[in-house]
Amino acid sequence: MQRMIWAVVIAFIACLAVGPVLLPVLRRLKFGQNVYEYAPESHQKKQGTPTMGGWMICLVSVAVAAALHLGGWAPRTDMMLAALLLALGNLCVGFADDMSKIRRKHNKGLSPKQKMLAQVLLGAAFAFYCYAHPQVGPRIVVPFFQTEWDLGWFYIPAAIFIIVGTTNSANLLDGLDGLLGSVALVDAATFGLLALFAAGTAQGNDQRELMNLAVLGCAVAGACMGFLRFNVYPARLFMGDTGSMFLGGVVVALALLLRLPLLLPLIAFCMLISSLSDIIQIGYYKLTHGKRVFKMAPIHHHFEKLGNPESKIVAMYTIVTVLLCLVSLLSVAR
Amino acid sequence: MQRMIWAVVIAFIACLAVGPVLLPVLRRLKFGQNVYEYAPESHQKKQGTPTMGGWMICLVSVAVAAALHLGGWAPRTDMMLAALLLALGNLCVGFADDMSKIRRKHNKGLSPKQKMLAQVLLGAAFAFYCYAHPQVGPRIVVPFFQTEWDLGWFYIPAAIFIIVGTTNSANLLDGLDGLLGSVALVDAATFGLLALFAAGTAQGNDQRELMNLAVLGCAVAGACMGFLRFNVYPARLFMGDTGSMFLGGVVVALALLLRLPLLLPLIAFCMLISSLSDIIQIGYYKLTHGKRVFKMAPIHHHFEKLGNPESKIVAMYTIVTVLLCLVSLLSVAR
Repeated sequence: MQRMIWAVVIAFIACLAVGPVLLPVLRRLKFGQNVYEYAPESHQKKQGTPTMGGWMICLVSVAVAAALHLGGWAPRTDMMLAALLLALGNLCVGFADDMSKIRRKHNKGLSPKQKMLAQVLLGAAFAFYCYAHPQVGPRIVVPFFQTEWDLGWFYIPAAIFIIVGTTNSANLLDGLDGLLGSVALVDAATFGLLALFAAGTAQGNDQRELMNLAVLGCAVAGACMGFLRFNVYPARLFMGDTGSMFLGGVVVALALLLRLPLLLPLIAFCMLISSLSDIIQIGYYKLTHGKRVFKMAPIHHHFEKLGNPESKIVAMYTIVTVLLCLVSLLSVAR
Repeated sequence: MQRMIWAVVIAFIACLAVGPVLLPVLRRLKFGQNVYEYAPESHQKKQGTPTMGGWMICLVSVAVAAALHLGGWAPRTDMMLAALLLALGNLCVGFADDMSKIRRKHNKGLSPKQKMLAQVLLGAAFAFYCYAHPQVGPRIVVPFFQTEWDLGWFYIPAAIFIIVGTTNSANLLDGLDGLLGSVALVDAATFGLLALFAAGTAQGNDQRELMNLAVLGCAVAGACMGFLRFNVYPARLFMGDTGSMFLGGVVVALALLLRLPLLLPLIAFCMLISSLSDIIQIGYYKLTHGKRVFKMAPIHHHFEKLGNPESKIVAMYTIVTVLLCLVSLLSVAR
């Protein structure tokens, strides 16, 4: 518990320390954002704001989690490592995307096929890892029903779908100043708490594994909080795909390792509606040959077009996330 | 623990339900805000926004706390009642202030002397209650040092000073859309958690008393979250002095009942700096016959004058509060 709080506090302070060094470097490297050409007009002024702040979130949370992991060292603690590998793999996909956007000076990155292939491979590796791990396996928890559900071999494709879906949803959610940062903060902290509760009933090495996951969640939450200091409206730094893919990776890795993917629709609700609104919009557009459900997708741009300031949308998304995360905590709290 | 989460969730939903009923009523009663004439110019457009949203926070949190209290009924559970009486007393002072402002159609309420007298009397009653209560008494916890400090009879004036200081500081902090709501949300939730930790080592009726305080903290946090839905920039509803005095009262009551007033400089840091910046500004102005330390006091208006948007200042205050509250939780977490 103390280690978890320290993780948040240290990661936050580390971000504050890293920020003033990172910002001029990114600016010198000309890692400026090219605003997506179809974004609302008000976003054009964001052109040139440094991006790839995701490196800050990533480096800080990895360093803090690793340092605090040493404090609770156990002979076999590979779950945190696996979660970080998935997240870092996704970060690399996002980074490649960011780089090619900057090189080509417009808002298009890797080809969708290349991106998808890399994500599916990463997802498959992680799904096999979970399937084979004695502490995880294909039995997932059914929250609120005190029961478990054995998916058998079907666990593998389901997990790949969940991993690819969640990371891409996180990527889509990253469209307003501070939006994904705030939502991911709450999500990571919630999984940290869920890991703590799970550790309460585990023993020995299993318990240490879970406590490491709790520390990882808190380190990521702290890093998000520090990042928000530079990212709240008006943003001085964006996380880029680098950051959104990393955060999506962390969230989905924690969900699978804690055998709680069924809580994702609650905890990652805001990410989910970004994807769903995009799918609905495109599907309806194709079906009706040109009609739209939302003024703009993902849905946070729809709310923006309705005249809400960015900061208000971010506040509402955060409140909804906090509430749904509390409900998800009800599934384990006594 | 479950009751605490339910308190947040139910209070939040209740606020969402009450809001659409309350807003037109307040507007019909012409309970509009008269903007403080010395506020930054950008605040003039807030003229006429309904105020006294504090009633929503108050009624909802009292109702929820009372309802959930029944679930854990104990023969002698007067601590929650005492906390609520202090908060309601302060609410009445704030309400009288709001009413006289509206009647006289400018931003001046009760005379400072009348207000102070009422606050000191309320504070004295609560201080005596704490002093005489077997579970509270004049021994306060010295956090981080695993020791206690017996204040003896000096507890009474100290407690009165803390009560009057905190409620007035909360009142001063209420100057930007969503500011006090966000800070008080985090503060109340933190005291809820601190009460939960304290209950962990208590027994029997003492434990139930502490759990009731935990539920009260969470109910207030949930009500603040629901209130924020109407109060984040651009605000459609203000809490008024009614709300700020109530929230200040709840926070300070929980601090004293948990014997943790020494944590207030951490947990209520943002409230504290509002008062301190005001005192420094006025003192320096009188001393130097006209010079100023801050562009404007309380200090959140100073940040505003430096060109930061309201929403950013609120986000920063919230982040700082979360961080300091986490540090204060370190004092009890194992």
